[in-house]
Amino acid sequence: MTHEIAVIPGDGIGQEVTPAAVDVLEAVDADFDFVEGDAGDAVEEATGEALPAETRELAADADATLFGAAGETAADVILPLREVVGSFANVRPARSYPGLDAVQPDTDLVFIRENTEGVYAGIEAEIDDGVRTLTRVITEDASREIAEFGFKYAKRNGFENVTIAHKANVMRETDGLFLETAEEVGDSFDVDYDTALMDALAMHLVMHPGEYGVVICPNLAGDMLSDLAAGLVGGLGLLPSANVGEDNALFEPVHGSAPDIAGQGIANPSAMILSAAMLLDHLDYGDEATAVRDAVEGVLADGPRTPDLGGDASTDEVTAAVVDRL
Amino acid sequence: MTHEIAVIPGDGIGQEVTPAAVDVLEAVDADFDFVEGDAGDAVEEATGEALPAETRELAADADATLFGAAGETAADVILPLREVVGSFANVRPARSYPGLDAVQPDTDLVFIRENTEGVYAGIEAEIDDGVRTLTRVITEDASREIAEFGFKYAKRNGFENVTIAHKANVMRETDGLFLETAEEVGDSFDVDYDTALMDALAMHLVMHPGEYGVVICPNLAGDMLSDLAAGLVGGLGLLPSANVGEDNALFEPVHGSAPDIAGQGIANPSAMILSAAMLLDHLDYGDEATAVRDAVEGVLADGPRTPDLGGDASTDEVTAAVVDRL
Ligand SMILES: CC(C)[C@H](C(=O)O)[C@@H](O)C(=O)O
Ligand SMILES: CC(C)[C@H](C(=O)O)[C@@H](O)C(=O)O
Repeated sequence: MTHEIAVIPGDGIGQEVTPAAVDVLEAVDADFDFVEGDAGDAVEEATGEALPAETRELAADADATLFGAAGETAADVILPLREVVGSFANVRPARSYPGLDAVQPDTDLVFIRENTEGVYAGIEAEIDDGVRTLTRVITEDASREIAEFGFKYAKRNGFENVTIAHKANVMRETDGLFLETAEEVGDSFDVDYDTALMDALAMHLVMHPGEYGVVICPNLAGDMLSDLAAGLVGGLGLLPSANVGEDNALFEPVHGSAPDIAGQGIANPSAMILSAAMLLDHLDYGDEATAVRDAVEGVLADGPRTPDLGGDASTDEVTAAVVDRL
Repeated sequence: MTHEIAVIPGDGIGQEVTPAAVDVLEAVDADFDFVEGDAGDAVEEATGEALPAETRELAADADATLFGAAGETAADVILPLREVVGSFANVRPARSYPGLDAVQPDTDLVFIRENTEGVYAGIEAEIDDGVRTLTRVITEDASREIAEFGFKYAKRNGFENVTIAHKANVMRETDGLFLETAEEVGDSFDVDYDTALMDALAMHLVMHPGEYGVVICPNLAGDMLSDLAAGLVGGLGLLPSANVGEDNALFEPVHGSAPDIAGQGIANPSAMILSAAMLLDHLDYGDEATAVRDAVEGVLADGPRTPDLGGDASTDEVTAAVVDRL
């Protein structure tokens, strides 16, 4: 069966790493049709819209979407795209790789971030001169859905530790509901879990990441904690992510458009290629996903490497080396 | 002039480290009257109230308060106490000390955390079955006040880097106001500053803390980022904090009541003694504050050390060693 994959490179290094991921997807034994769409700063400048209606439709109609990066317009592009694919879960693995310089080399974490509500519900108002409010929304349904997804993910992927992150001592009603619901779900699974205040968790993750596995988080906590974990393993250049919905999904590197190095052909394509591996997993090409991950890991260990990892290879050279190993 | 200092040890190791800090304050050349008050789990169990009215009044009437730690009731104690002393700024230095094991030994950060609003304004509601909201509040006044405090702090303490943390790409109106106001204040000061999305900042702080100095944050971002920084320097045992108001202030270690080691007399008193040094600074005993900080630093370098730092000394032995150096 042919799957239609929407490809949205976006801005900056998105233009360089997205084709790299497509090269890799073309090299594995899978039947994909790629259709490309525009989004980001450049298209906003040209048309007034960061996310044109055709690109939305492309993503809505495809079986899955690969998204590169956007610049200044990132929030205007990625938040609606996550909605378009109906994604309720943002899956963000953060692991260190042998041979690479990492602040904490013993890191193997997966953040399961609620992807629809919290402060991202985004209801803001100016209620008086110089007084503004934002309404943070937490629902039992979304909390249950993300917790079930997280516990299932842990089980399927052999993680022994699950942590539910929250700040229910301050956000008593909202994070209270999130915590209570996630605990209920946890109790119904045959897996150990812990709960942790997200501030204390930030400290513990920095000091002892090896003690954690899957971390289920409200939206903004997941945003911060997963970037923190990126710091532990050597930066955003290695972190893929999946935005998973009922019957659609979008895959993107955690990094942004990196305007400082864009256009030089030296961007690290690993995060984007690992995002493509998550896409393969999602479309039930499990063996191919594993092959791609192994190939990336091999290249990370033996080189060639892009400058962010201390090498001097180009994006194309790294991509070719990954394809070579498939 | 005699200053009245309210002393609220609270629960767990608060009962052990608070007397240590009082010992140190009695050993320096300053004129203090200490008055003690109850708060926390134990007093809640006995009286039904975690923060009795007398303790509130004690803190309100004193020139400054030393607070130890509270257990389960932490939020019911510390949030109202911060309000009682009218504190708008939470000052949290996080630095690494020579000779101590730290994830990032080159860390010298001070978080200036807005202390009155954001999600801590705490207006929550159940608007439908399983749907709850929290109203996050950001005002121009509080944003200006914390930014002015932060830039003044940087100038007075010789910090060359100031960073304004925010998430204005998502919380456009509320953090937009925080950011815009803080930038206005920054422009009026003769100091360089940067702005940073708080998720990206979390990553950069983990990887390159040496590139940062003073970090001005909304309330919850400051909560998380300062705990993250605690992880970088070796844990909460070393982090003091000040809650500063117009004409009152409260000083507390960033750590909690540590029920796992409470009652054994082995808690590290450094964070609490460093909080007392911040109190000395606040009451214009600058030389004494420096002497206390130097003494703590000396003991951290040469020992004795408590078990959390790999030693086997007691709280009392460490405290005596600090007093000895004064
Ligand atoms: C660009 C921004 C809206 C986005 C987010 O906050 O989710 C980004 O930080 C991320 O984590 O993918
Ligand atoms: C106990 C809790 C309410 C408190 C906070 O969130 O401010 C604590 O985490 C802190 O940082 O002092």
